Amino acid sequence: MEEQLTFELSKEFAGQLQKAVDDRDDAFIKQTLEGVNPADITETLEEFSSADSRYVLGLLDTETAAEIISNLDEDTLKRFLKVYSPREIATFIDVMDSDDAVDILNELSADIREEIIASLSNKEKIDHILDLLRYDEDVAGGLMAKELIKANVNWTIEQTIEEIRRQGENVTQIYAVYVVDNYNTLLGKVSLRKILLAKDGTLIKDIYDEEVISVQTNVDKEEVVSIMKKYDLDAVPVVNLRGKLMGRITIDDVVDVMTEQAEEERQLMSGISEDVEEDDSIWKLTRARIPWLVIGLIGSFFGAEVIRQFEGQIAVVPILASFIPLITATGGNVAIQSSSMVVQSLATKSVFQDSNFIRLMRVIAVAILNGLLLAVLAFTFSYFLRHDMQVSIVVAVALSCVVLLASLSGTITPIVLDKMGINPAAASGPFITTANDLLGLAVYFMVAYFLL
Amino acid sequence: MEEQLTFELSKEFAGQLQKAVDDRDDAFIKQTLEGVNPADITETLEEFSSADSRYVLGLLDTETAAEIISNLDEDTLKRFLKVYSPREIATFIDVMDSDDAVDILNELSADIREEIIASLSNKEKIDHILDLLRYDEDVAGGLMAKELIKANVNWTIEQTIEEIRRQGENVTQIYAVYVVDNYNTLLGKVSLRKILLAKDGTLIKDIYDEEVISVQTNVDKEEVVSIMKKYDLDAVPVVNLRGKLMGRITIDDVVDVMTEQAEEERQLMSGISEDVEEDDSIWKLTRARIPWLVIGLIGSFFGAEVIRQFEGQIAVVPILASFIPLITATGGNVAIQSSSMVVQSLATKSVFQDSNFIRLMRVIAVAILNGLLLAVLAFTFSYFLRHDMQVSIVVAVALSCVVLLASLSGTITPIVLDKMGINPAAASGPFITTANDLLGLAVYFMVAYFLL
Repeated sequence: MEEQLTFELSKEFAGQLQKAVDDRDDAFIKQTLEGVNPADITETLEEFSSADSRYVLGLLDTETAAEIISNLDEDTLKRFLKVYSPREIATFIDVMDSDDAVDILNELSADIREEIIASLSNKEKIDHILDLLRYDEDVAGGLMAKELIKANVNWTIEQTIEEIRRQGENVTQIYAVYVVDNYNTLLGKVSLRKILLAKDGTLIKDIYDEEVISVQTNVDKEEVVSIMKKYDLDAVPVVNLRGKLMGRITIDDVVDVMTEQAEEERQLMSGISEDVEEDDSIWKLTRARIPWLVIGLIGSFFGAEVIRQFEGQIAVVPILASFIPLITATGGNVAIQSSSMVVQSLATKSVFQDSNFIRLMRVIAVAILNGLLLAVLAFTFSYFLRHDMQVSIVVAVALSCVVLLASLSGTITPIVLDKMGINPAAASGPFITTANDLLGLAVYFMVAYFLL
Repeated sequence: MEEQLTFELSKEFAGQLQKAVDDRDDAFIKQTLEGVNPADITETLEEFSSADSRYVLGLLDTETAAEIISNLDEDTLKRFLKVYSPREIATFIDVMDSDDAVDILNELSADIREEIIASLSNKEKIDHILDLLRYDEDVAGGLMAKELIKANVNWTIEQTIEEIRRQGENVTQIYAVYVVDNYNTLLGKVSLRKILLAKDGTLIKDIYDEEVISVQTNVDKEEVVSIMKKYDLDAVPVVNLRGKLMGRITIDDVVDVMTEQAEEERQLMSGISEDVEEDDSIWKLTRARIPWLVIGLIGSFFGAEVIRQFEGQIAVVPILASFIPLITATGGNVAIQSSSMVVQSLATKSVFQDSNFIRLMRVIAVAILNGLLLAVLAFTFSYFLRHDMQVSIVVAVALSCVVLLASLSGTITPIVLDKMGINPAAASGPFITTANDLLGLAVYFMVAYFLL
């Protein structure tokens, strides 16, 4: 059973398929792909050339081909769309869920988009798509699909079941039937289980659940994610400002958003400025990495200028130079820890969050504790290694100042970025380490200047 | 509608509730919490003392109280459990889903756990719990719940509906009915929609879907997440080695695992060594942060010893000291970028991943390109600022070597960690920057030694 069902994707399978495509062995291709999950075919085709993929998709039925296309990653999708005419793309769009259709249309230029929409045969799909295209991709309206099952509050169970039969094919997973009044205002929902167990002739109004959590079309997608997570929802209806039912968002969309968020945060924290994958072109990878490296480089030249001011002192007390990495590394580590703590707590936003003042007080307390511990250690190590009391004192004092300053800057930066609408994870990246290097060097040499 | 349904949690509400608790105003508490979503009550009670929470929960029905308790975050849960006797905890466990019950039991000592299990009144629940306790928390068996609806392949639709009616209360969201043979072997599934639309007298064997994706009890939870994401599943049945249906995992569990993964990665990347929140105690926060800071400190003292070897040179050419931060900062930035790229591609594992050799070749190509660009910039800046040709050449040469070495170490470290079963994100944290500081300093001063 297990073996048969969870198809084991392999390079061997891809190789055989590639060979069959080269030989134009249609019978083999069709037979091999029979019953294979579209998600597995997608993964295989992502390794194929667009022309070969087109050949394979041409041998499958339109529904399966459309599903495969809607699963493709962004880069492959862009590549794919180039080998199809707008009219051909329209045949796939015709059988896709409206949200997937719009994701694809958004990858195309406005004129191709219009050509595709003009070629669509399904009138309802056109309406759905035109409605969805109005929303920004980052709000609930941009995440939702128009496909859902709704029942009028005055209907009987039989009428509702008839509607499920009629609409059923268009809605992949039903989850619940939404209940509306004559003006399409969302009133509540009723689960399939309740419908299944209800006696014939029961009215929807007598069994529906009024407590339905909904989101408005203009709500940020981050908030949609946190609402669906908090209330353990598998689907959430989307309403407009006047409470009319406009669409619904399903949990698989939320899972995708969470994956994107994780990737974005990883990139911000590591100073990669474009959405790149390890197998992108060498030029694209270089371009994604160079901006923050250059910013770091420029920052370091400012750092070099700071040190230059104290070169006389270094020439006299060259030990001072050897503790430069201690100061910059510790400052960077502390700042990144601090900003990550803030990013974490912003991600699990609660109305009960402490005020910024209390937060800062706590940060200062932790910083003083950490700073003192590190200062004692640094003093001990340094004195043990170099037997220079004065320099050891300079290192210990500078280090505890740097820990305090880095804690503050690491805490304040993400809060400020968040207020400005910028992803606060950017504060845990090279920006904070570069800024702290400068701060740390200035503090260190000032302390040395005054104490030596 | 909207206003009524999405309850706006506020500090004001929490304040009113707290006052009512202080006044022992039971009527007000009951009235206020009437119809409020348990998830909102959970969030409010997380701010209350355990004694006050216990008081509030005592006024609610057992089911609601149990749901609130199962939603609590780990820290609050531990605090809560202390104010209840094992017998009282058992009354909550009795009405909880088996997976939530086990999560709570896992927080308790073995003897309290046994006392609770002995106090349970629901025989089936005891069996479920004893079964689930056998699995590690990190595998499918530890994630699954025993509650699910299954139908024998020989049943009629009527028998299946009767089973749904009987089991319905225990299963929060049905998603699909799993189909088994007389020996409980998973054969497939049938959707509620199909059951709803089937004619009376239809046999399950004639309508069920054989293509069901399942996971085995011993599969890692990371793999469960990636399977459910890839195939857009809202629930996945869990089977044992012999294909018997053991339980099922629902998408909300996967969402929780993804949230945990994101938090764990954030902590590893920022060198925080415990699972802490911003509002934890100052001592706990300090303890979570100090280990990596100390490791960084020790690393920096090794760095200081490296520099010490060249102190004579620094005394003669003090400019050299001013470029130390340039070397360490760039090395750190490059290494973190490289390791993040690897972590990203490990997170979206594909069987088509390039071999490690091809990966390294590409990394080297990108590194050479980045290294050359940075070296040219560094030479230009440095010569423009200091007019010292020799030192500028040293900086440029050292920098391009450091970029290459940091790219390699940043790429290899996470691959090695992953092979060792350690979360590769650990390679994007302070470990890699500390190691690269040492490497960078050694390279820089060696280059200076040979070229000056």
